[in-house]
Amino acid sequence: MTAPCVRSGLLDVLANRIAAETPIWLMRQAGRYLPEYRQVRAKAGSFLDLCFTPELAAEVTLQPIRRFGFDAAILFSDILVVPHALGQKLTFEPGEGPRLAPVVTSRGAVDKLAADVDMTLLAPVLETIARVRTELPAQVALLGFCGAPWTVATYMVAGAGTADQAPARFFAYHDPEGFERLIDLLVRASIDYLAAQFDAGVDAVQLFDTWAGVLGPQEFDRWCTKPAARIVAGLRQRVPGARVIGFPRGAGTSLVSYAESVAFDAIGLDWMINRKFARDEIQTRRPVQGNLDPMALLAGGAALDREVDAVLEAFSEKPFIFNLGHGILPETPVAHVERMVARVRRSSLS
Amino acid sequence: MTAPCVRSGLLDVLANRIAAETPIWLMRQAGRYLPEYRQVRAKAGSFLDLCFTPELAAEVTLQPIRRFGFDAAILFSDILVVPHALGQKLTFEPGEGPRLAPVVTSRGAVDKLAADVDMTLLAPVLETIARVRTELPAQVALLGFCGAPWTVATYMVAGAGTADQAPARFFAYHDPEGFERLIDLLVRASIDYLAAQFDAGVDAVQLFDTWAGVLGPQEFDRWCTKPAARIVAGLRQRVPGARVIGFPRGAGTSLVSYAESVAFDAIGLDWMINRKFARDEIQTRRPVQGNLDPMALLAGGAALDREVDAVLEAFSEKPFIFNLGHGILPETPVAHVERMVARVRRSSLS
Repeated sequence: MTAPCVRSGLLDVLANRIAAETPIWLMRQAGRYLPEYRQVRAKAGSFLDLCFTPELAAEVTLQPIRRFGFDAAILFSDILVVPHALGQKLTFEPGEGPRLAPVVTSRGAVDKLAADVDMTLLAPVLETIARVRTELPAQVALLGFCGAPWTVATYMVAGAGTADQAPARFFAYHDPEGFERLIDLLVRASIDYLAAQFDAGVDAVQLFDTWAGVLGPQEFDRWCTKPAARIVAGLRQRVPGARVIGFPRGAGTSLVSYAESVAFDAIGLDWMINRKFARDEIQTRRPVQGNLDPMALLAGGAALDREVDAVLEAFSEKPFIFNLGHGILPETPVAHVERMVARVRRSSLS
Repeated sequence: MTAPCVRSGLLDVLANRIAAETPIWLMRQAGRYLPEYRQVRAKAGSFLDLCFTPELAAEVTLQPIRRFGFDAAILFSDILVVPHALGQKLTFEPGEGPRLAPVVTSRGAVDKLAADVDMTLLAPVLETIARVRTELPAQVALLGFCGAPWTVATYMVAGAGTADQAPARFFAYHDPEGFERLIDLLVRASIDYLAAQFDAGVDAVQLFDTWAGVLGPQEFDRWCTKPAARIVAGLRQRVPGARVIGFPRGAGTSLVSYAESVAFDAIGLDWMINRKFARDEIQTRRPVQGNLDPMALLAGGAALDREVDAVLEAFSEKPFIFNLGHGILPETPVAHVERMVARVRRSSLS
């Protein structure tokens, strides 16, 4: 047994040290699989109202910490608040995904967006961070986040989620310079927004590039790797030593150059990556975080145990944060999460 | 200039030789982007009627050969004719994707399927092959195909296409032995069906594992790599020397073990793969085929030229078949295809 830390082991890992106990948190840990979340959700009006009501957003941010004792809380918000703060109208209709209007499918439309994020629109998010900070135990890290420019752009161009991100991929090939203006705008907006999150009290942030996996190698370099490098560098000019986790889902064989080129403090791994490859080619370069298949957590039982063990076996010998390889699925039984957490905790003691 | 071959350069590549001129064909080359296809399609009843009417299916198979002079014709059919021949009812409603009923979500449902494909139901497909064979110039290869067991299973379990293949992924974790029965059945069915395609006159076949990319590494090995190895071995027992191309879309970092473990004659590459990785780690093991981004073909212009050049530069020095990294998009202008073909042809002369 190790003595309890006064700060989260997650921050040790981000400083490239092996934590005394494997830190664990889950992407989308504040969410629909929790009955206490669904209660709060029912009180809020729209999903966006929940994001923008600090009292409620702070409450759902804290719920999974109380229930599972995770090593990090992650701000409850949405990656699309940034386009909202750049002038696109954001709505979440019940039973549907997000909608953004008007769509940004041309250079002219990019130029009609605001030149900078309207930080007054994002003030409730920053207030949520401040509220969570005061209530969070010292040994739990507080994570902020934003969507990476490519992923945010896929929604801004399409006006909605899409199966294949076709509208943004087309724009990027058809008018690369016009599309680059949108990416440049999102790089600046991300730096401003993430710096404000640090000012409000987060310990580290994660950059979510959920749709990185649909790009060819040259496009990946131009629209994912290079913008990420600019965000990390720009953020650290504003917030010296800012800790940043990069999560380019589906990057696959392009992940090596991404991990090499961007000075992230850790790389999030999706569940599809070959773990031997990730250990040999990524974890030798940066601490890693991941990568349990959310479907194994939903299934539970022997399959879950086997997957938990495979993740721990692959990554525990170097700096490592246990997490899923993508967000937890809403149908996941709470008992499966408890089983997984217990198994990860037990492994740290053995 | 090289003298015209009496057989397709594609077959040279599958014999691990560099073709005199880079062979080219496109996944879904017989399809909606062609006005002559849309004319035939309007004459058929349902999409399935088109697949099962040899005269019409042969006609649309030949159309892209006449128009573009591709080096291979690929049988016009659908991967879901196999579950149809195993007893699931297959329908294509206008404006919707395919539907299969009843769904196969349990071991019990697997056991209610037929033990073998009903080859009488597949007879029209085999007749299409025979018809195309008689009309095809000798220097054009004729390709057959089937869906890989994992990909076909994702449709059989869900009863439809899905965004994330969740139902099959859940089944595979929840009851691996039950799911394995379904995969075993599809391995046997694939061998029977592909052997019959060779008997009917194809020169080579492609195994499409469109949804390979959603699996974690152990699942990929169990549900994609091992079944593919059994299909290739089983097929060659029936058809000695049978040529087979494997296309596990999205395999990413798991592609190396796939290329190493399965005795394919070529590996199809998706557009997302890092080309340096593919050249160094895959093309050193097997001939490769691919991998232009279909979105670059849709966009056209300078982006298309640049992507064509990048593909040729990466792969032309070893045995290589030019293709897309996924099926051609229905909105693609015919002029863009002409531009791409001309550029590939020109490169062979320089």
